[in-house]
Amino acid sequence: MNAIKEITSLANPLVKDIKALAQKKNRDETNLFLAEGLKLIIDALDLGWKLNILVVAKAAIGNPVADKTIARALALGAEVVETSEKVTAAITRRDNPQAVLGVFEQRYKALTSIKSSGTDAYLALDRVRDPGNLGTIIRTADAAGVKGVILIGECTDPFAIETVRATMGSVFAVPLYHASEIEFIAFRQTFEGIVCGTHLKGAVDYRTVDYSKSPVLIIMGNEQSGMGEALSSACDKLIRIPQQGRADSLNLAIATGVTLFEVRRHALTLDERTP
Amino acid sequence: MNAIKEITSLANPLVKDIKALAQKKNRDETNLFLAEGLKLIIDALDLGWKLNILVVAKAAIGNPVADKTIARALALGAEVVETSEKVTAAITRRDNPQAVLGVFEQRYKALTSIKSSGTDAYLALDRVRDPGNLGTIIRTADAAGVKGVILIGECTDPFAIETVRATMGSVFAVPLYHASEIEFIAFRQTFEGIVCGTHLKGAVDYRTVDYSKSPVLIIMGNEQSGMGEALSSACDKLIRIPQQGRADSLNLAIATGVTLFEVRRHALTLDERTP
Repeated sequence: MNAIKEITSLANPLVKDIKALAQKKNRDETNLFLAEGLKLIIDALDLGWKLNILVVAKAAIGNPVADKTIARALALGAEVVETSEKVTAAITRRDNPQAVLGVFEQRYKALTSIKSSGTDAYLALDRVRDPGNLGTIIRTADAAGVKGVILIGECTDPFAIETVRATMGSVFAVPLYHASEIEFIAFRQTFEGIVCGTHLKGAVDYRTVDYSKSPVLIIMGNEQSGMGEALSSACDKLIRIPQQGRADSLNLAIATGVTLFEVRRHALTLDERTP
Repeated sequence: MNAIKEITSLANPLVKDIKALAQKKNRDETNLFLAEGLKLIIDALDLGWKLNILVVAKAAIGNPVADKTIARALALGAEVVETSEKVTAAITRRDNPQAVLGVFEQRYKALTSIKSSGTDAYLALDRVRDPGNLGTIIRTADAAGVKGVILIGECTDPFAIETVRATMGSVFAVPLYHASEIEFIAFRQTFEGIVCGTHLKGAVDYRTVDYSKSPVLIIMGNEQSGMGEALSSACDKLIRIPQQGRADSLNLAIATGVTLFEVRRHALTLDERTP
């Protein structure tokens, strides 16, 4: 079992390695990412995510929940680092950093492992670019009870710190998949359910599709250019949200939210979560 | 009629004044704000907003639409400034600034001027804090055909540059109102329609209210603390969006989008905007 290491210097190699996770290149090389906040880290451990390093600011030591999490991390073989707020602020680039940070192993599931049944809903995103959008979309998919989020083509990294932050912990709860467009279209052929793409030229009102009879796969297009041709052709239906007003279109995260809550309309009731 | 001024120095007083609009204090003192992009500025002029200064990067001079807008701005008595990309970049704090910027007079409407009829929908936001959220919400309200957005209490400034940017031009299209909580509650007494607040303890499924019979006023709470007690008590119904998953709640902008598209469900059809 490891012991707690005390680190106070920003020049410490471990601190430098954690800070370096701000760059995608380093996340890709190490297959690691950073998550902030004690509650979120406990949730991640409960869900079986592999914790590599736990960073705890001095101020949190002695807090019973933090201490319990430190013991749990040590038992799991993670490194535990006690440090100053100066260091956690530098790692997270925030003035008021969370007192507890976790470095976790990234995790994607294989697209071929999807076995849809009932009215399972999946969300696919075509080349989503904005980290905040992606984080909010993952959070929204979680709230709507979506079974997985598939990233198609060159998407922004779901494991970037600002994206993880925007998911509010849902990055640990919603299975993530990534695929090239070709891989996705191959997967789509095997998907036993309805495939709907949202498209500005969509002829089908998104509220007229019956999402309560089979699994559903929803595809949302890129923020600027929408969905590509090949993906559009792979859809059973091209749906659209009716809009008024002068705005050109909804923000991608809003359009996704409005669509997902329609898709899951039949399944969501107030009984599922008590007030 | 004014002539076009050429300004190349960042030290020019007019440039300094425009840059100073990044601070709320200066926006409040001058009652001005900055908007970016030629299309957006043309839309604003079409809607009757008062243009104070038009800033045009050299690269845009000669573009027929830009030239026409310059002539229009001069005819309206606005100052027109021709400048370099260095200056527009400094003003907007962006690496790739828009070639045309406009300084407009801020505009709030008086709450007492609201005369609701039919199934008019209004949106009220209780102490919304995040500029991006507010911008996205104004854009979404526009797309849903909402008649006005009311800012209650200490809200983030809708005329901040990042908020204006996030509205994608809807800041010019959707009437804005602001009110203290007391003023809003007084207004609410005179509002001839149904008043629904979204609340985590709301007992009413947001889909079970009939929004198609009278005007509707929707109140959304603050990002962290939700809606205050006094506002909650002022609602006819406290509504809630059923959710699954581990996420605590939806992002405010998403919750607003999902709610508004339900409120406007009866009024929105694909016929209203051709593909």
